[in-house]
Amino acid sequence: MINNTSKLLDKAVEQLGSLPGIGQKTALRLALHLLRQDIEDVDLFTNTIRDMRHNIVYCEKCNNISDNLLCDICSNPIRNHSIICVVQSISDVIAIENTAQYNGVYHVIGGVISPINGIGPQELKIDSLIRRVESGEVEEVILALGTTIDGDTTNFFIYRQIKDFPIKISTLSRGVAIGDEIEYADELTLGRSIIDRTNFCKL
Amino acid sequence: MINNTSKLLDKAVEQLGSLPGIGQKTALRLALHLLRQDIEDVDLFTNTIRDMRHNIVYCEKCNNISDNLLCDICSNPIRNHSIICVVQSISDVIAIENTAQYNGVYHVIGGVISPINGIGPQELKIDSLIRRVESGEVEEVILALGTTIDGDTTNFFIYRQIKDFPIKISTLSRGVAIGDEIEYADELTLGRSIIDRTNFCKL
Repeated sequence: MINNTSKLLDKAVEQLGSLPGIGQKTALRLALHLLRQDIEDVDLFTNTIRDMRHNIVYCEKCNNISDNLLCDICSNPIRNHSIICVVQSISDVIAIENTAQYNGVYHVIGGVISPINGIGPQELKIDSLIRRVESGEVEEVILALGTTIDGDTTNFFIYRQIKDFPIKISTLSRGVAIGDEIEYADELTLGRSIIDRTNFCKL
Repeated sequence: MINNTSKLLDKAVEQLGSLPGIGQKTALRLALHLLRQDIEDVDLFTNTIRDMRHNIVYCEKCNNISDNLLCDICSNPIRNHSIICVVQSISDVIAIENTAQYNGVYHVIGGVISPINGIGPQELKIDSLIRRVESGEVEEVILALGTTIDGDTTNFFIYRQIKDFPIKISTLSRGVAIGDEIEYADELTLGRSIIDRTNFCKL
C-alpha cells in the first residue's frame, strides 16, 4: 500500500498509521486529505497537537490532565472535595464527567498493578492517594478501577492501605446494563446483579 | 463529549476530529494516545505531517505528487512514456500502481468538470495534457476518470480535443468485478459486460 512517488507522503502515512485503529489505507486517505488542505490549516493541526503534548501538565493533586497546576475539577469550590473517585486513566474521568452524575473529585492513578507488564504499586500514583486520605479531609473513596484481574488486585491493594481510616470505601455497582436484554447478559454480571438486587422503588 | 479540564486537549480533539471519518470519540482516543507518547515521538509525528504539506511538490510533467520537479514515474526510464493514463487524483495513481499491471505514465488532472461545483476545464490540468499529446511522443491515452456523469463529461471533453491526433484513445474496461456474484451485479454494469463480452480463451 505504500506509494513510491513521494517519500514525504510515505513518511506521513507511516506516522498516521501508527495511531491506534488507523490502518495503512485510512492513513493514506488522511494524508491525502491533509495534503489538500491549506498550509495554514495543516500548521494549525500540527501546532495544536504539539502544543497539547508539550504544555499539558498533570494536576498536582489528582494527577488528571490540566492546563494549570491544579485541574479545573480540583480547583472548583462547588465540587465535593470529601469524596474521591479513584480511576485508572484520564479517559475514565471524562467518561464519568460525561454522566453528569458525580460531584466529587478524582484521583487518577495512571494504570493498574500488572506484574506481567512490570507495573508495580510504585509506578502508580497510589502514595499520593494515601496522603490525601491521611490528610483527614476525605469522607469516602470510590474504587472505580476496571474489573479485570489486575484492576481487582489494585482495588484490593488500595483497600488494604486505607481500610483502617474512618472513611467509607465503595465501588461502582455491577449489573445488567440499562437497555440490555437479560438473556444476552453474561453469567458473571447477571449472577452479581441478582445477588446485589435493589429495592424496586429505588429505581 | 468535550472534556473541560484542559483547553489544550479540547483543541487537539477538535483538530483530530476534523479529519475525515474521525468522530469526536475517536479523536479523543487519538489525542489521549498522543498524550501518552514520548515528546520526541509526537514531535516526529507533527513534523512529518508539516514537512509533507510544506515540501511536497507536483510533478511538472504529470501533476502527480513528488519530492522533486519530476516524479519518480516520469523520471523512470524503464516506464513506457508513450502511454498516458489520465486520472482524476493522486489516489487513483496509487490504486493503479498497486495493481502492478501498468507500465506507462500518468496525467493527474486534479478533478472532473463539475459546473455545479464551479469546476470548469480551466481549473483542471487538461491544457498540459493536450500539450503532451501535441508533442508527438504519445501513442495511447487511457481515459481513466470516474464513471460518474461528471467523469464521463470530462472524459468526453478530453476525447474531443485529442481525437484528431494519430493516437489510440482507450478507457478502462467495465464489467462484473472479479469475485462478484452475477445476481448481485447492478444492471448497468451487467448489461455493459454482456455487450463488451470477450473471448473465453483470453481470460
